[in-house]
Formats: sequence, C-alpha cells, structure tokens
Amino acid sequence: MMRQYNFKALSKADINQLILRNTDSGNAIRESVLNIIEEVKTHGDDALKNFAQKFDQVDLQQLYIGKEALTKLAEEIPQQVKDAITTAYQNIKKFHESQTSSKQVIETSIGVNCWRESRAIERVGLYIPGGSAVLPSTFLMLGVPAKIAGCKEIVVCSPPQKNGSVNGYIAFVAQLLGIEKIYLAGGAQAVAAMAYGTASIPKVDKIFGPGNQFVTMAKTIVQSTTNTAIDMPAGPSEVLVIADETANPVFVAADLLAQAEHGPDSQAVLVSTSASLIEKSLEEVSKQLAVLPRKEVAAKALTNSYTVLVDDLEEAMDFSNQYAPEHLILATDNWQLITDKITNAGSVFLGNLTPESAGDYASGTNHTLPTSAYARSYSGVSLDSFVKKITFQHISESGIKNLGPTVEILAEIEGLHAHKNAVTVRLENI
Amino acid sequence: MMRQYNFKALSKADINQLILRNTDSGNAIRESVLNIIEEVKTHGDDALKNFAQKFDQVDLQQLYIGKEALTKLAEEIPQQVKDAITTAYQNIKKFHESQTSSKQVIETSIGVNCWRESRAIERVGLYIPGGSAVLPSTFLMLGVPAKIAGCKEIVVCSPPQKNGSVNGYIAFVAQLLGIEKIYLAGGAQAVAAMAYGTASIPKVDKIFGPGNQFVTMAKTIVQSTTNTAIDMPAGPSEVLVIADETANPVFVAADLLAQAEHGPDSQAVLVSTSASLIEKSLEEVSKQLAVLPRKEVAAKALTNSYTVLVDDLEEAMDFSNQYAPEHLILATDNWQLITDKITNAGSVFLGNLTPESAGDYASGTNHTLPTSAYARSYSGVSLDSFVKKITFQHISESGIKNLGPTVEILAEIEGLHAHKNAVTVRLENI
Repeated sequence: MMRQYNFKALSKADINQLILRNTDSGNAIRESVLNIIEEVKTHGDDALKNFAQKFDQVDLQQLYIGKEALTKLAEEIPQQVKDAITTAYQNIKKFHESQTSSKQVIETSIGVNCWRESRAIERVGLYIPGGSAVLPSTFLMLGVPAKIAGCKEIVVCSPPQKNGSVNGYIAFVAQLLGIEKIYLAGGAQAVAAMAYGTASIPKVDKIFGPGNQFVTMAKTIVQSTTNTAIDMPAGPSEVLVIADETANPVFVAADLLAQAEHGPDSQAVLVSTSASLIEKSLEEVSKQLAVLPRKEVAAKALTNSYTVLVDDLEEAMDFSNQYAPEHLILATDNWQLITDKITNAGSVFLGNLTPESAGDYASGTNHTLPTSAYARSYSGVSLDSFVKKITFQHISESGIKNLGPTVEILAEIEGLHAHKNAVTVRLENI
Repeated sequence: MMRQYNFKALSKADINQLILRNTDSGNAIRESVLNIIEEVKTHGDDALKNFAQKFDQVDLQQLYIGKEALTKLAEEIPQQVKDAITTAYQNIKKFHESQTSSKQVIETSIGVNCWRESRAIERVGLYIPGGSAVLPSTFLMLGVPAKIAGCKEIVVCSPPQKNGSVNGYIAFVAQLLGIEKIYLAGGAQAVAAMAYGTASIPKVDKIFGPGNQFVTMAKTIVQSTTNTAIDMPAGPSEVLVIADETANPVFVAADLLAQAEHGPDSQAVLVSTSASLIEKSLEEVSKQLAVLPRKEVAAKALTNSYTVLVDDLEEAMDFSNQYAPEHLILATDNWQLITDKITNAGSVFLGNLTPESAGDYASGTNHTLPTSAYARSYSGVSLDSFVKKITFQHISESGIKNLGPTVEILAEIEGLHAHKNAVTVRLENI
C-alpha cells in the first residue's frame, strides 16, 4: 500500500529522494537493443520477420496490412465503439487545430522584415503499442496532429496480433485518419526500421510514441546515432493529485488507481492539506482495488506510491513543482487560486469533475506527455511536434543601409571579416 | 576550390552522397568526453579548475566573474560597439517577443474546456563559445529569449580568456540582459557542470548553445544519460544559396565565403539555374578569398563545398529540400515564386539584399539553427525553446455527463477498467 509522509518532517534530501524516479538507466537492456538495431539495419525485412516470429509468435508473409483488409477489420467493430472513437477524434482534432499559428510579419528595423512559417515534418513514424493492451487512443493522439500538420508520409508501426493482423479499433482509427497501411512491427525493431528504413518500411525524420523499455531505449539510441529525431524520452506513467477538504475521496481513489493500473512501475502521489481526506482516500483505494481486473498490477504500482500531508495548497504546489508530474489533478473547488503557481507539469486536470481519463481518451488534449520529471523542460506532444517553424527575413535597400553598419561592427568584433564583407559589398553596390 | 555538378547528370545515389554530412560519429572523442564528464561529476569545482589549467592555460581562483567586474569590463568597450550590440539586442527582443502566445480556451465538447499555457523552463544553461572567437552574438541569441520567457535561473558558461576573465563584449551583453554572473568554464566540462551541478555552478534543466565537437558530444551524452534536455544536436555550419540570373555574383561569393570562414568543416553550396552565374561567382570567390584574414580556414571549407547547375528554380528547390540547409539564401528577385515550396530549412534569406550575416547578428531572427539535415525535423531556437506549453482542462457537470460515456467505452476496449471507473464514480455522484 501507499507510504505516508508529512511534508513538515521531510528534509531537502528526503524530498529529493521522493521526487526521484526512473533511476534505472536501462543499461541491462542496452546491449540487446543495440543488437536488435544492428540486425534490422543489416537484414531489413528479414530481421523484422524473424523478430515477429520470436517476440510475437507470428509468421508474417508481408509486413503490413493494406487498405482493403483495414476496411474489413474496421467494419466489424460495434457501432457504439465507432461512435466513441469518432467523438474522441473530433475533440482531439478541434483542440489540435486550434494550435495552428498564423504568419506574423515583424518589421524589426526600418526595411527589415522577419517572420516564421510552419512546415510539416515530411516523414513521421508513429509507434502504436499493442502488446499487453492495444491502444487506439495513442493512434488518435499521434495521427490527428500529424494529419493536421500535413505530414506527407505517416508511417504507422504496431506489433502484429496473434493472428498476424491488427485489431479492428486500430483499423477504424486508420480509416478515420485516411491512413492506408499499418506496418506489422513492434518493439525496438520497429523503431530501428523507421530510423534506417527497410525494403517495406520507409525511413522517417521523426519517431513518436510510447512503448516499453525496449522501445524507449531504441528511441534514445537512434536519436543520438542517426539524424532521426524523437518526440521525447519516456518513462513509466505517473499522476500527482493535489486534494483539499473539498475533494471527494471516492474520486481521488479512482484517479490514483487509474494511474496505478498502467503498469507495476507506475506511480501515484497524493498531496493533501487534509489528513482525513488522505485516510478516507486510502480506504477507498483498498475498496476499489479489490474489484479491479488489473488489481495485481495496480497493487504493485501502489507500493511505489505515496501520500504527502501539507499545510496548505501553496505547500502542495511547491512539492508538485519539484516533482514535475506528467499528470497533475487539482482535486479542489479552489483550483483557480493555484493554477498560476504551476511551473512544471505535463497536463493539468482542474476541479473534482475532471478525471485524467478524460484527457487520456477524449477531451481533446494530447496524452503523450513528459514523464520522470521531464515536465521541467519538455512539453507534451502537440501540433508543434509535427512541424518546424522556419524563420524568414527580407531586407530592402533602406533596410540594408540602415542595419548594415551594425552588422559590420558586430562581425568585426567577432573577427569574421567575410561576414562583414557580405554586407559591405551590398552597401557598395546599391 | 568548389566542386561542380550538373543536377541532370546526378543519380539518386549521387544526390544522397552530396547531401550527406556530419558522418563523423565522433566516436574518437566520445571516450575523452565521457572521462571529462565523470571528472566533473566526481570532483566538481576542482575538476573545472584543473581543466581550465589544462585547456585554457589559466589558474582560476573563483569560477565566475561577478557583477562588479562585469560592469567595469563592459564600460571599457567603444561606444559604437555598445550601440551596435544594443541595436541587435533590440531587434532580437522585438522578434522574439512576437513569439509569445496568448491563452486560447477551446470548448471541445459541451462543458469540456481545454487550453495551453506557457511556463518558463526554470533553470537554463547557456553555453557561449569563446575559444577561437568570442561570440557576444550567441549570448544575445540565447539570453534574450531566456529573459523574455522568464526563466528564473539563467546560468551562463564561457571559457576563460588568457587573463582569467571574460571579454568586454560578453560583459556588456550580460549587463543588457541583467545577468550578474558569468561562469568561467568551457568545453565538455561546462556542459557536465550544468548537467550535474557543482559547488559553484548550478544544475540546470536544459542546456543551450553551439560549440566544438567536444561540447556537442557532451550535450548528446548528458541528454541520453541525465534528465537534462538540450536545444538541438549541432554540427558544422552550412549555407545553401539558390541563385538565378538576377543574382549578383559578388554578393553570392561574399555569402559563400561568410559561411566558409566559420571553420574548415563548414559547407557552402551554390545551386543555380545559370552556368554563367556559377562561373562568375567562382571567380569572385577566388578574388575575395585572397584578401580574407581567415583565408586558410575558408579555403579548406571550400574543398567540402560545391555548385549544382539546375534547369529552373523548382529543381533548385527540390535539391535544397533534400539537403535541408541550416541557412538558405534565395539570391533572386523572384523569391516570392518559390518560398511556398520550401519544406526543409533552418532560416531563409530572401532576395539579393538579405545577407545571412544580417540574421547572424542583428536582424532579429535567431542564429542557433539545425545543421546536418536536422532542419528536416528541428526548428531553430526561439522563445518556444525556453518554455513548456502545459495543457489544462476543466470539465463541468454537463461536460462529464456528456463526454463521460465516451471515455467509459474507450477505456473498456483498452482493458483499463480503473480508467473507466474514474468516470463512472463521478457519473454516479452528480
């Protein structure tokens, strides 16, 4: 069960210890991931087929499911699931479409105009996990902004199911997005295929998507050894709930468990101004846990989890900002008083009726978020993740006359005379 | 001198060879950088002082220059340099201030409100190179957006000069920015200090700045082994000039040489629709090269450089997009016809009177840009690089009634019952 702490009794060192996670550098799996990458780099499709046999226990004739097969699979899912996926799709689309930015020309000096324009990353790779759980929601979260951005080539990899195919939910999302192929590759081998390209699977410029430790290690390796970018480093999922006496312990417990069921290494943290709320929430956790299908996973995660009793919401926010949670739930009617104080978090859920689950699936925000305190420096996935913002500038005759001498002086003091000369020759010729 | 190619005669493989750069994986220096990092991690300030002795030939008593000394140093520089730096500062400030984004609340479904808010990365580290050239311009390019973003702690590292201090230009920039301390550390050891922290130098959340191969390798290593983020991978600088018959060969040559003088591994590429323009530009390159102070560096860089003759501007743009240049100069009066076709570039300079030098120093755009074809997936540094965009959501009673059932269905199909339950308990209690 969850450990309990009192903020007042914690030293700076205690807090540093509590906010620490993801300390496993993964060195144990590094060697095997390097081998997988080398295999895919050298043997391409053959390596992928061998890995499918070894890890997914399927014999693949071809490494993708095409349009016709996807259409058939998509048809077979129940109408109410189609409707739910469609609602989520529309909300995610609406929110991510609002992230487009318009061109804004700034005349920084007379005759010197500067602006930025967005251009889609041309070839993106989306990794959709499909081992213990198949995740159509992740496909939506990555596919929708990729489509809005206008990425020309969207390569989707997902591990083959036991029948050598993908499931109907994934197929239905593909249909909604207008994606006509799903590549049957999982794990580190899928990442390697998208970084290096194989006969079947195109090389991409940036790889997105969560995954197990092997996938994460492979992403980290290709990021530092090829010119393939990645969305962000990823670790186990986590939530921090800040709750005061206005919170409902039944809701708090449900939110903690929703996090805990993700995996045995997930972490749920409850920070509260109320000792009684903590007590009641823990009672509720036990009660709700007992009837969960994934109760073993969740129980294991709860042993990594803890509560912290604080004096007030400011102290709660202080701890939360140091922790820098992937998900932050403000389970209080007074959330408006503290949102400005948030400095580090991936995604924030405000008030007692806003469960993290809503953002995980359907409210419209992205669920691909920075874990393991990366929220200190990384944003979650958004439309921005699928574009480059290119700067442009145009200088007129009056502009170069006006700004040129400044550039000449600055180039001179840095000892870069050819830089200076690029201005001088222009000033001499107009 | 520059090699010459004809686009029509190039096979796909030839083009792939031409656009390839930065193939040195740097494995030769990896070991020594790992050692430097380990030294700094273990011995902190003492290691930094030893490295200053070894690499910079200075004995440092303290590892920083404080406010008073900076003020004195800043006073000593000529007024016209102060004015030039101030003009650049104002333009960079104006352009980067225009990159702030306002909060935009989107009601994705009835009662479901989602938005993003920017929060500064709290602790940032700026690396300002100072070996062969001292770069006040880089300090402006990184310091201005860090200040606008509102970063609480801005740690600036620059290698000590022979006199154990920093130069007056750097001091003057510090004054403009309101930065009161410059840490005297350079190379991989500065990166290690900012990633791990020492007694003198604070640990940061994200490290910015260009540098030599050691700095770059250190950034790559700390990115994958600590939770310190970096701005982007960096390689040698490069320019691609697209020129037609409206271009001035004198300007084109000056722009190619401005790139070439950066370092012996820099690359300058000229793509032109006009054989005569290429010929005249190469003649001009020889002429201008002869009188350059850094002519040996530039001449070496030109041996890595080349020209490509194309049929028309579209073909030129096709090659450029495959190359994905850090700097792209459209040396043509017809630039408006082709800017929409740009898919991959770091920063673009439009028309015959817009030298890259302007953007390097003073027009307002940032000069920290993706090299080595990273422009396919990375943007240059901007205000965005210094903030996280955190998503927020608030769901009302009508919102959860409306969206809740959708979330329940989606959680159910992914087998995540605690996720479903977080909604169910709320629907049952309102």
